[in-house]
Amino acid sequence: MTAAIDYDALLAPDLPPPAPGWRGFPPYNFIGGNVDAASMPVEDMIAATATALRREGTTLATYGLESGPLGYLPLRRFVADKLMQRSRLAISPEQVLITSGSNQALDLVNELFCRPGDTVIVEQFSYGGALARLRRLGVRPVGVPLDEDGMRMDLLAETLATLQAEGVKPKFIYVIPTIQNPGGSIMPEERRVELLRLSAAWGVPVFEDECYADLLWAGRRPPAIAALDEGGQVIHCGSFSKTIAPALRVGYITAPAALIARMTACKTDAGTGALEQMMLADYCRRCFDGHVNRVTVLLKEKLDAMTGALEEQFGTTAEFTPPEGGIFLWVAFPETVDAMKLAAAAAAAGIAINPGPEWSADAAPARSRIRLCFGNPSVEQIREGVARLAAICRREFGIPLRSGNIERSGPAAP
Amino acid sequence: MTAAIDYDALLAPDLPPPAPGWRGFPPYNFIGGNVDAASMPVEDMIAATATALRREGTTLATYGLESGPLGYLPLRRFVADKLMQRSRLAISPEQVLITSGSNQALDLVNELFCRPGDTVIVEQFSYGGALARLRRLGVRPVGVPLDEDGMRMDLLAETLATLQAEGVKPKFIYVIPTIQNPGGSIMPEERRVELLRLSAAWGVPVFEDECYADLLWAGRRPPAIAALDEGGQVIHCGSFSKTIAPALRVGYITAPAALIARMTACKTDAGTGALEQMMLADYCRRCFDGHVNRVTVLLKEKLDAMTGALEEQFGTTAEFTPPEGGIFLWVAFPETVDAMKLAAAAAAAGIAINPGPEWSADAAPARSRIRLCFGNPSVEQIREGVARLAAICRREFGIPLRSGNIERSGPAAP
Repeated sequence: MTAAIDYDALLAPDLPPPAPGWRGFPPYNFIGGNVDAASMPVEDMIAATATALRREGTTLATYGLESGPLGYLPLRRFVADKLMQRSRLAISPEQVLITSGSNQALDLVNELFCRPGDTVIVEQFSYGGALARLRRLGVRPVGVPLDEDGMRMDLLAETLATLQAEGVKPKFIYVIPTIQNPGGSIMPEERRVELLRLSAAWGVPVFEDECYADLLWAGRRPPAIAALDEGGQVIHCGSFSKTIAPALRVGYITAPAALIARMTACKTDAGTGALEQMMLADYCRRCFDGHVNRVTVLLKEKLDAMTGALEEQFGTTAEFTPPEGGIFLWVAFPETVDAMKLAAAAAAAGIAINPGPEWSADAAPARSRIRLCFGNPSVEQIREGVARLAAICRREFGIPLRSGNIERSGPAAP
Repeated sequence: MTAAIDYDALLAPDLPPPAPGWRGFPPYNFIGGNVDAASMPVEDMIAATATALRREGTTLATYGLESGPLGYLPLRRFVADKLMQRSRLAISPEQVLITSGSNQALDLVNELFCRPGDTVIVEQFSYGGALARLRRLGVRPVGVPLDEDGMRMDLLAETLATLQAEGVKPKFIYVIPTIQNPGGSIMPEERRVELLRLSAAWGVPVFEDECYADLLWAGRRPPAIAALDEGGQVIHCGSFSKTIAPALRVGYITAPAALIARMTACKTDAGTGALEQMMLADYCRRCFDGHVNRVTVLLKEKLDAMTGALEEQFGTTAEFTPPEGGIFLWVAFPETVDAMKLAAAAAAAGIAINPGPEWSADAAPARSRIRLCFGNPSVEQIREGVARLAAICRREFGIPLRSGNIERSGPAAP
C-alpha cells in the first residue's frame, strides 16, 4: 500500500475481504430486510422526536441518558408491553437490553457462549447474517431440516444425540419460529413445547429470534417460545428494523437476569443511539399498532405481486409456499439451477437476489434455492424484475422453457 | 441459575464480570465524557431532525439510507470539511467511515491488527476504554512516558528498539496528541513530525485519536498528525460525543483507502444509527462552530471552578496542569495516596472519580493520580464535590492536612 508501512504484514491473517465500493442499490433490489419507502411515517417521526427532545433532550449530555446501560427506559417499557401483548411474554423492563439492531443481540449471545471450535444448532435454512457471524467466529452451525411447521423436532433429537455421541455439547439452538427466515413457516405451539422439552432434557438453551413476527397478515400467532418457558431456557431477541425502519439501528434482547447482566458487561459501545431510542419510544407508544396494520396490508400486496409474477414467468419450475407474513419468499428451482451462478448473472443485470447457499447451514440442500425480498421494491419493480430474472435463468439454465410473454413484449434482460 | 440449563458450564470462561444494576448517576459525577446539560441545543436539534426527515426520511426504509456502508454522505462531507478546517487534514468523504461512537473506531482498528499476544504502543497514561479494550483482547499495551508536550519521542525510540530486541513488532502507536487523555497536553508540530519519522523508520503505523481536539479554549492547534502524513502511515478518528452529545453514538475514522475497505468489511452492524447521522449532518453544517464556541467558554468556567476548588481544598498536595481545552483534569497526589482506595471510598460517598491506574498502561506510575471530569457537573457540584473528596482523602490518607474551611462551614463528607 505504501512504502513506509507494510500493512499486509501487520494486518491480521483472518480478515474478511475488503468491502467493495458502494455503487448504489441495483434497479431490482430483492435482498436485504428493507421495507416500503412510501409508508415511512415521516411526520409522526418528526413529532415524536420533537416531543421526546423537548421533554428530556438535555439528558443527551450523559452517556446512556439517565437510563443506564440497558437502554432508554421508556423504550424498554414499550418493548415489555409489546412482548406481553403480541408474544404473550411477561417480563419487566429491567430484563430488556436495548441493542444496536438485533445483529448486536446475535453478537452478544455469540460472545457469551461461543469460542472457535464450538457448535451451535440452527435451522437448516436460516438467516444468512447469523450463519456468517458464526462462521467468522470459527463456530460450526449444524443445521436441522425444516418442514412446513419449522424445525423438525424428531431430527433435532437425532442431531442432539449424534452430537453427544461425538462428544460435542452445542452451545444453543438458534431458531426463528415465527415467520422463519427464509422459509416463512410458523412453528405451532405444540412444537414449541416439544422444543422446550428437548432443550431441558439436553441442557441446551434456545435462542429465539422474533425479528419478523410482528409482520403477520392475520396478526394471530402462537406464544413466543420464551413465553412458554418456565425454566430460564430461552434467550429472545427482536427488532424495530422490519416494523419501522431498518436504517434505525434498534433491537432488543431479553433473557434470564444473570445472562442480561453478562451481555450488558459485554456491550462496550457506550450505549445504543439515544435519539433513535427516544424517537421510537414516543412514536411506538402512540403509533406502533396502527403502523404495523398499515404496512402488513401493503406487504401482502407486494407478496401477491411477487407470487403472481413468479407463476406467470416461471410456471411450475418455481416452487414456493407463500408466507403468512414478513418480507421474503423462499423459492426452489429444479436442481439444474445453480443459485450462486444465477445470483451472479442477475447481479450483472441489475437484479439482486440472495442465493440459497448463503442462507443455509450446508450449501448442498440450498443449491437451487433463492430468497426474494419484496418489502422495498414497488409492485412494478417486482413484476419487471421477476420477468428479467426468468429471462436470465432461461439463458443460463434453460429454465423456465417459456416465461410469460417476455420474449414478445416484456423487457429484455440486458 | 436454573435446573434445566447449567449456564455456568456453557458460558465462555473469559467473560468480564456481570454488569452491576443501574442505580443512577452519583450526586458528584466526575467520570465519563459527559457534557453540559443546559447547553444541549435541543431546539436546533429538533429543527435539524425535521429538515432532514422531511427531505429524505423515506430513505430510512433501506439499510444505510442511500449512502452505502460508509455512512450518511452529507455527514461524511461535513466531517471532511471539519477536518480540513480544524485539523488541516485534506480527505474526501469516500475516505471517511462513520462509526457508532469512536469506541467502534477503536474496535475496528483492533480487529484489523490485533490478535491475542500482540503488542500496541500507547502513551503511558491513556484513555481507559482503549486500554481496557486491548487487555480484553489479550493485547499488551506498552506505555511510553509523557511530558508537557505529550508522548516523549526519545522514549518512543527506546521502546521501539527494546521491542525489536525482544523480537516484537508492535501493531501501531496509539496517541491522543491534542488534549491528551488524561493529561491534557498538546503535542507541538515538531514532535508530530518526529513521530511520523519514527513511524516510517520502524514501519509501525500511528493511530491518532482526536476526540477532544475541537474543544480548545483558544481554537488554535497544530495540524493533525494525519495532516502531516505523506506516507499513508496514519489512521485518524474523532467523535461528536464531546462536541455535541455523548448519548448520540456517532464518531468517524479515516485512513488509507485499503484500510477503510477492510474496516468497512469488519463493520457488521448494518450501519450506524441513521436518525442521529441525519440530525447531526444538518445541525453541524449550520451550527457546529457556534455551538463549540459557546460550550468551550462554559467548559473553561467549569475547569476554573475545579482548579480553584482543588487549590482551596488540597493546597499544594494536589498537582495538576490546567489543560487548554477538553473536559478533564489529571491530578497527582503525594504517593501516600492510593487512588484505587480513594475512588472506592469516594464512590461510597456519592463521588465518582477515575483512579489513575485505570487510565495507565502500568498501574504503578498512576498509583496516586486521579482523573476528574468537569463537563457535566455544575460549578456548585464541582465545588461541593471537591470539598467532600478532600475530606475523604484526609480521612483515608491524612492528606491534605487542612482543606479549605470544610471543617467549619462546608458540607461534611458522609
